[in-house]
Amino acid sequence: MAPISIDQKLKELQIVLPEIVPAGNYVPAVRTGNLLFVSGQLPKVEGKIAYKGRVGKDLNIETARRAAKACVVNLIAVLKNELGALEKVKKIVRVMGYINTYPGFNDHVKVMDAASELLVEVFGETVGPHARAVVGVVELPLMASMEMELIAEVR
Amino acid sequence: MAPISIDQKLKELQIVLPEIVPAGNYVPAVRTGNLLFVSGQLPKVEGKIAYKGRVGKDLNIETARRAAKACVVNLIAVLKNELGALEKVKKIVRVMGYINTYPGFNDHVKVMDAASELLVEVFGETVGPHARAVVGVVELPLMASMEMELIAEVR
Amino acid sequence: MAPISIDQKLKELQIVLPEIVPAGNYVPAVRTGNLLFVSGQLPKVEGKIAYKGRVGKDLNIETARRAAKACVVNLIAVLKNELGALEKVKKIVRVMGYINTYPGFNDHVKVMDAASELLVEVFGETVGPHARAVVGVVELPLMASMEMELIAEVR
Repeated sequence: MAPISIDQKLKELQIVLPEIVPAGNYVPAVRTGNLLFVSGQLPKVEGKIAYKGRVGKDLNIETARRAAKACVVNLIAVLKNELGALEKVKKIVRVMGYINTYPGFNDHVKVMDAASELLVEVFGETVGPHARAVVGVVELPLMASMEMELIAEVR
Repeated sequence: MAPISIDQKLKELQIVLPEIVPAGNYVPAVRTGNLLFVSGQLPKVEGKIAYKGRVGKDLNIETARRAAKACVVNLIAVLKNELGALEKVKKIVRVMGYINTYPGFNDHVKVMDAASELLVEVFGETVGPHARAVVGVVELPLMASMEMELIAEVR
Repeated sequence: MAPISIDQKLKELQIVLPEIVPAGNYVPAVRTGNLLFVSGQLPKVEGKIAYKGRVGKDLNIETARRAAKACVVNLIAVLKNELGALEKVKKIVRVMGYINTYPGFNDHVKVMDAASELLVEVFGETVGPHARAVVGVVELPLMASMEMELIAEVR
């Protein structure tokens, strides 16, 4: 049996990649050599920030994990746009997570793991695992609860 | 008519590149292969932080946009120092903005766009457009209102 | 006299490299080409976060500088694990510091310099100096007072 494509995998996961519109005067991604730097993605769904506010206050952990996945879906949409085929991603290199939160929050790992797990689910055990950092911040563009950046090695 | 140089363009924009003195025990930039990683730059003018405090509280949006441009001028000064000629910048790859702010602020995009616009103005429509992320943070070195990092592809 | 190895240098500095266990669903580092991206490291000592809380409130500057060094020791442990020999580090490229702090703090440079100094001490004046940025953030994973990321050029 032939391996299923990443597009098929996305379909199985019921993930529909959105169109990407940068929030400001920049581009969704820049390629330099074999590295693709993807701009910070917010938890937009159907063109709107679906998850606003502070994690742990305005959003509980389960909702924040959905926000993290929404960021990843947008990151993948940029990869697809830039590369045509997601099979051209050779390695997810580094993912950076910024969580809009407040003093006292300390569930960064649980929230960010939702993003990391989805990347591994979509890209598999070879391409998907990545270096990562996650921090809490004071507000994000458009009142988003989260922002994520990604660097990928591409073919 | 020959295309004008980036130095001439800076002159037209009345931008004078300052001398760069790192705030601590690090170097202004490191080149690896064709990538140049520039250290975080603060909104220094004539050797001093010209824009201190929290954006949206101590600085309004217009002032914060000037601070963003001051950070970019310092980033360009590092590029010039490292490369000799700014024409050696092949591509602005990624710009990261950290805005010193408070809960309730959500004009990150307006502030950061000032930085992105200046980079495109100086480097042009091919080299200038970049991947970007911007977040709000709790205080920055020397009470700066902003900090910006940059990665460039260079010749 | 032969130059001493980096392992000997670590011994002189009484630094014992710990085993690295990622806090979540990610890997300690990813290599792409000659670049090694190291995941954010916390000030863990013997498997536990040794420096918790907000710098300037729960930790004074001297303690925070020890926390910064603990992050660096963990970064070096990842480099050693990935490369086998630390002599394979050709250049420390970029170090990013996230300090868990509060409005009013402005000693980022003093804290971060402890990290930078240790890197130069261990890797020497050619390999060690790096580009850097440092910002204050709202809480970090596991209540850590600090988090540090590193990019190295490797052989």
